[in-house]
Amino acid sequence: MGVLKGALIFGQSGGPTAVINSSAAGVFQEALKQEAITGVYGAAHGIKGILEEKFYDIRKEDPYELELLKTTPSSALGSVRYKLKNMEEDETDYKRILEVFQKYNIRYFLYNGGNDSMDTCNKVSKYFQKVGYECRVLGVPKTIDNDLWGTDHCPGYGSAARYIATSIMEVYHDARVYDQGMITILEIMGRNAGWLTASAALAANAGYGPDLIYLPEIPFDLDRFFNDVNEVYRRQNNVIIAVSEGIRDKDGKYISEYGQELAYRDSFGHVQLGGLAPTLVNILREKTNAKIRGIEFSLLQRCAAHLGSQTDVNEAAMAGQMAVRYAVEGKTDYMVAFEREAGPVYKCKTKLVKLEEVANKEKKIPREWINEAGNGLKKEFIDYALPLIQGASAPPLENSLPRFAKLKKVLATSLDREPVSVASK
Amino acid sequence: MGVLKGALIFGQSGGPTAVINSSAAGVFQEALKQEAITGVYGAAHGIKGILEEKFYDIRKEDPYELELLKTTPSSALGSVRYKLKNMEEDETDYKRILEVFQKYNIRYFLYNGGNDSMDTCNKVSKYFQKVGYECRVLGVPKTIDNDLWGTDHCPGYGSAARYIATSIMEVYHDARVYDQGMITILEIMGRNAGWLTASAALAANAGYGPDLIYLPEIPFDLDRFFNDVNEVYRRQNNVIIAVSEGIRDKDGKYISEYGQELAYRDSFGHVQLGGLAPTLVNILREKTNAKIRGIEFSLLQRCAAHLGSQTDVNEAAMAGQMAVRYAVEGKTDYMVAFEREAGPVYKCKTKLVKLEEVANKEKKIPREWINEAGNGLKKEFIDYALPLIQGASAPPLENSLPRFAKLKKVLATSLDREPVSVASK
Repeated sequence: MGVLKGALIFGQSGGPTAVINSSAAGVFQEALKQEAITGVYGAAHGIKGILEEKFYDIRKEDPYELELLKTTPSSALGSVRYKLKNMEEDETDYKRILEVFQKYNIRYFLYNGGNDSMDTCNKVSKYFQKVGYECRVLGVPKTIDNDLWGTDHCPGYGSAARYIATSIMEVYHDARVYDQGMITILEIMGRNAGWLTASAALAANAGYGPDLIYLPEIPFDLDRFFNDVNEVYRRQNNVIIAVSEGIRDKDGKYISEYGQELAYRDSFGHVQLGGLAPTLVNILREKTNAKIRGIEFSLLQRCAAHLGSQTDVNEAAMAGQMAVRYAVEGKTDYMVAFEREAGPVYKCKTKLVKLEEVANKEKKIPREWINEAGNGLKKEFIDYALPLIQGASAPPLENSLPRFAKLKKVLATSLDREPVSVASK
Repeated sequence: MGVLKGALIFGQSGGPTAVINSSAAGVFQEALKQEAITGVYGAAHGIKGILEEKFYDIRKEDPYELELLKTTPSSALGSVRYKLKNMEEDETDYKRILEVFQKYNIRYFLYNGGNDSMDTCNKVSKYFQKVGYECRVLGVPKTIDNDLWGTDHCPGYGSAARYIATSIMEVYHDARVYDQGMITILEIMGRNAGWLTASAALAANAGYGPDLIYLPEIPFDLDRFFNDVNEVYRRQNNVIIAVSEGIRDKDGKYISEYGQELAYRDSFGHVQLGGLAPTLVNILREKTNAKIRGIEFSLLQRCAAHLGSQTDVNEAAMAGQMAVRYAVEGKTDYMVAFEREAGPVYKCKTKLVKLEEVANKEKKIPREWINEAGNGLKKEFIDYALPLIQGASAPPLENSLPRFAKLKKVLATSLDREPVSVASK
């Protein structure tokens, strides 16, 4: 495989994490060093920025700001949820992408995201192959949900897990401060896989965690739930419960939809739904006189760069950096993945997984890592997750508040306005 | 005033903060040094621990754990919401307190809390004076709400403000990641005073904050709110709004009660109320096609020791330390308060305020610190609040998760069980 001279473009896609920009930093810093790479662009709002020709010209960015990306949460280039049609159906987008790539001589396309983003990469690459345009396409993994197939874990997960575990340890102290009965329900993200909710077990492992943890991997049974809660409450007068937003009953119905049966129309005629935490609070309120509180970690859990895992931040950058190296070496149609080396000391290296093998698959928590009652995690999970949250990463401070990266330059070509970005205000 | 030999007891009361235990550390470390003080006790669950004779014997605690209190959130001794009856009405509790104080020769009573706790201090002291029991009573201020009268600011506020400002700066990045219309509503604590919600302005001052801030100090008008939101949305397609849980309309009705009109009975016959954020989300949904999200910082904002303000942590310890010194010097019936020295460099010293002057008064944000439209803060507020969040305080880490203080010994006398505490699990 010979040297392929040309520009590189990198895009961010899907929901934010605390370290998606660390992967960007890894990509950009490595790309700027590579002789084969003649231009380095960041697509504003992912594939949409390519279609609309809205790029950041990374060579014109301040290197200090690029370094700051490592501790800046969310997607500095802007993200997107845009699904490419199948090319058999409609080639319009693909033709436009090709046109833009040709105009800038883009020969390296790196895309950061989860399942759907790997699917986008795969489709674009297949189209280029069909029309004979040489371009190396690599995926960089990202998701707080940790559900990507083919990788030991995903960048973004470790930091979210460290945030969740730390916050629960603090809430634990708050929830036990009064000498009275209290039940606290913590709603954590994760629609189909319980990795994030399971990270609550790290708090329990440290001595201040939930008594009960319910994951989407295990069908949720309301009667068993009542029994579990009562048993703990009787024993210690205080129960902390971590639930995944995605828990379902044995018929596959989301427990959060149980609130739907309680739905009402507001004065505007809209049907109002409660989330999972309020639904469980309402259901439990019938059964006990305890004070009950529901807390939803909401999007705080996915953008908390101030409680980043240094391991996660470093690995996210490594994934980006290695994607560039693999591409320059001639690899294409792969996602960079993590492999954990065997042995007592945690060590992580990269490998490649075929894009088409990653797209549309999900990785769930193995049943044998969950306790028999289905309401807690076993040591196997702790051994898996604890190394991923090691090291404290946080942005540098200015006036004791975070100093985030500010990207400013956007390629002027067809731009009528600045893309919405971290620099937009 | 001669030397008063005797034991000291310290209690924690009211809602948790990130630094209430730092005041405890200040009290205990100073009390252990004072020759006049013959015993140092911590009351489990405040005044209730005194009535039930449930104490921590601080001389038996590990000094390292006492130091760790400075970065352990919530109330390590346990808190309480217990209102003493007026002694004219019922002397039972007062007699019991006197009995316990005499048994342990307690001559120093220090109590940490807000308004109500200062009232408790005052009542106990008045009773002792009536029956001729010599005991020095001092209040140590505490409240994230920052609404205590007679002090420049309150321990607990600076850390909560730093958490709120930092979290909003992160949410700002998350909320702007997609190139589509979005409205984010952040619900922040503060029933009657807007100090906490106003701290959102520190995020705006750093470049990533809310566009609109609504405080309980200003009557809330729904039409004006719509206009404000529309105006910002039209301009930038994205609106971040910080609202205090306590906003009320011109008739004094809580906006969160507007949700009450939309209340419904669930299948158990309970009336369900939405909080303020869901209520505003519902109301706005009628007016716009933007994606709207409500986030409640809930009790995360009052126990986030990992984002503590070092200034706040230090001052909280200083308040406790000085309370002991003042008491030993002969002062009684005061609350320790903070005075900010004039001049360009922030400097804070302690002073004393009469307990009876503090009880049942509230300090609100001056109207002239709020902008004319009533939807934002002026430079005067930033100048006031910014020094209070300076310095990053966080607990030491073990396995990259916080290592909190563990108190263990409880005076055995009349105990049948360990009080609920940080050490209870």
